[in-house]
Amino acid sequence: MPLNFVIPPLKSTLSAALQSKIDQKTKPLGSLGQLESLALQIGRCQNSLKPSLNKPCILIFAGDHGIVEAGVSAYPQAVTAQMIANFLAGGAAISVLARQHDIELLIVDAGVNADLNSHPKLIDAKIGKGTQNFLTDPAMTAEECGKALQAGADQVLRQHQGGCNCIGFGEMGIGNTSSAALLMHRLTGLSLVRCVGRGTGLNDRQLQHKVTILQRALNQHRGATAPLDVLATFGGFEVAMMVGAYLKAAELGMLILVDGFIAGTALLVAGRLHPHVLDYCVFSHVSNEQGHQTLLHQFKAKALLDLELRLGEGSGIALAYPLVKSAVVFLNEMATFAEAGVDH
Amino acid sequence: MPLNFVIPPLKSTLSAALQSKIDQKTKPLGSLGQLESLALQIGRCQNSLKPSLNKPCILIFAGDHGIVEAGVSAYPQAVTAQMIANFLAGGAAISVLARQHDIELLIVDAGVNADLNSHPKLIDAKIGKGTQNFLTDPAMTAEECGKALQAGADQVLRQHQGGCNCIGFGEMGIGNTSSAALLMHRLTGLSLVRCVGRGTGLNDRQLQHKVTILQRALNQHRGATAPLDVLATFGGFEVAMMVGAYLKAAELGMLILVDGFIAGTALLVAGRLHPHVLDYCVFSHVSNEQGHQTLLHQFKAKALLDLELRLGEGSGIALAYPLVKSAVVFLNEMATFAEAGVDH
Repeated sequence: MPLNFVIPPLKSTLSAALQSKIDQKTKPLGSLGQLESLALQIGRCQNSLKPSLNKPCILIFAGDHGIVEAGVSAYPQAVTAQMIANFLAGGAAISVLARQHDIELLIVDAGVNADLNSHPKLIDAKIGKGTQNFLTDPAMTAEECGKALQAGADQVLRQHQGGCNCIGFGEMGIGNTSSAALLMHRLTGLSLVRCVGRGTGLNDRQLQHKVTILQRALNQHRGATAPLDVLATFGGFEVAMMVGAYLKAAELGMLILVDGFIAGTALLVAGRLHPHVLDYCVFSHVSNEQGHQTLLHQFKAKALLDLELRLGEGSGIALAYPLVKSAVVFLNEMATFAEAGVDH
Repeated sequence: MPLNFVIPPLKSTLSAALQSKIDQKTKPLGSLGQLESLALQIGRCQNSLKPSLNKPCILIFAGDHGIVEAGVSAYPQAVTAQMIANFLAGGAAISVLARQHDIELLIVDAGVNADLNSHPKLIDAKIGKGTQNFLTDPAMTAEECGKALQAGADQVLRQHQGGCNCIGFGEMGIGNTSSAALLMHRLTGLSLVRCVGRGTGLNDRQLQHKVTILQRALNQHRGATAPLDVLATFGGFEVAMMVGAYLKAAELGMLILVDGFIAGTALLVAGRLHPHVLDYCVFSHVSNEQGHQTLLHQFKAKALLDLELRLGEGSGIALAYPLVKSAVVFLNEMATFAEAGVDH
């Protein structure tokens, strides 16, 4: 498995100079709040007093899940492939939001249970036609998991080579909040009910059914406790690719924008393998999916947005992106007290 | 005084059609959270199923305050005029943020205690060279207050005639958190200490001094309780102009973006005069200034952003603007389930 990533902590060489630059801007000290810590993080990430966001990109990893046979989602599995067509046609939420902010959007077929028509924005990295149903077997083999990690890393490298230094990962996969809940539960030890949510919109009865099914899956795989075992057992191909993508992006020193619940659980796995991956991450939003707020506490993170989103697709990233850009804009473009001749 | 505004509630003719349009988009029901209620509000405000944001504009009203003689601010009064020069030169926070989002930025001299050089983006509407110190006299006369309300309304009308349908109001005025605290206290009945904050950055001792001074001012003017009396007694010229601006914008059916604490207390006055002004308002952020969260509770509002800003200038408006635009973008550009051939 491609675990030979080298992920150092953020450099602190320029921390004092960056803070001083922030403090000399024409505004009361600290008055840009969270944007100031964000500017500091971006400056450290790029080890620059004049950071920039180049060719921002969102990769949506898509995959299907064997567990949907057990009725854990409000939507049928066919929706995964249908939504990919919608992404590519420009009609999905993430399509219109990425367009609004000039963010490149690419879809990666990580393991959709359908033959997809080729498209310039669709990357074929299919590991298989959906995962196994983890009620009986592990979702994927260790070999498949390793291939998925590598494929995620490869996609990020490709974007980096094209000049991108700011990347985010979205996902599409009917059933994947079930995977995410199990990853969170098994890796954090938090109770299952705190990790399971309504996904695309389950009612109370359906939610109870989902919890029952997921508890059964946990009982079936008591031995899976190491991060990669947990990932292979309960994950999805798209989730595993996100893990590889996070790790490679951090290794390359890219700024990483983190979306919602599923993206967060993939990051949880990545962070258990290489803790400093978190240094490169900006948490775009806290979602309305049960468990996401708790997951952010695990990361000691405060998200930029709290708009009760629960859509996935990387939509929170696209919505938060202008704020990330604002942090760079104020750092680079605002006048200092001295330049503007303002008393302080 | 120009109180003959006519501000009807938002039309509900299209409410059901708008909600249906939102619900048919290719996303789980309700999954765009707060952006969905925002899309509904904007559609009702414009009485259109296909709303648009045209020529967005921020007006910064600037004025000086007699009360700064009493040492209630961390900055000297000269900073008001210095910051106006900074706005116009493009170096202030609001300058760079408005530029980032193509928002027109105009500065209105409501009553700065300095002779300002003319500039294409500076509007001279000076009522006087700063208000009176309300420790002894009312900040302004009833006639001055009326002139300020009218001037604010006139500026909004001018933007509307130029094609703007989405407007926000920022402020600049050393000392104006003192005015704002007194307006909030007198109009809501909340205790003074809940309404007074650190402004541009007072320490504990300075904050205590500010509270003492403001309590003395309240004792001096026990009779001022009607909204316009409170405004004339404790307000600033820039605050009074914002009141007139809110009322005119609502009368014209414009979408109004509300900034932070001072902007919020001006809206409090406007809302006491014409309650339906609030229907047209989008609350851009909850600031770190003591009292703003409580003020938003008074409005029963949830702000779009919570980034611990405390800068004023309309900076929260500029930062929230792309989210407001996203609400319009998803409503107009996302595909429906039927159009995209997605099961649901």
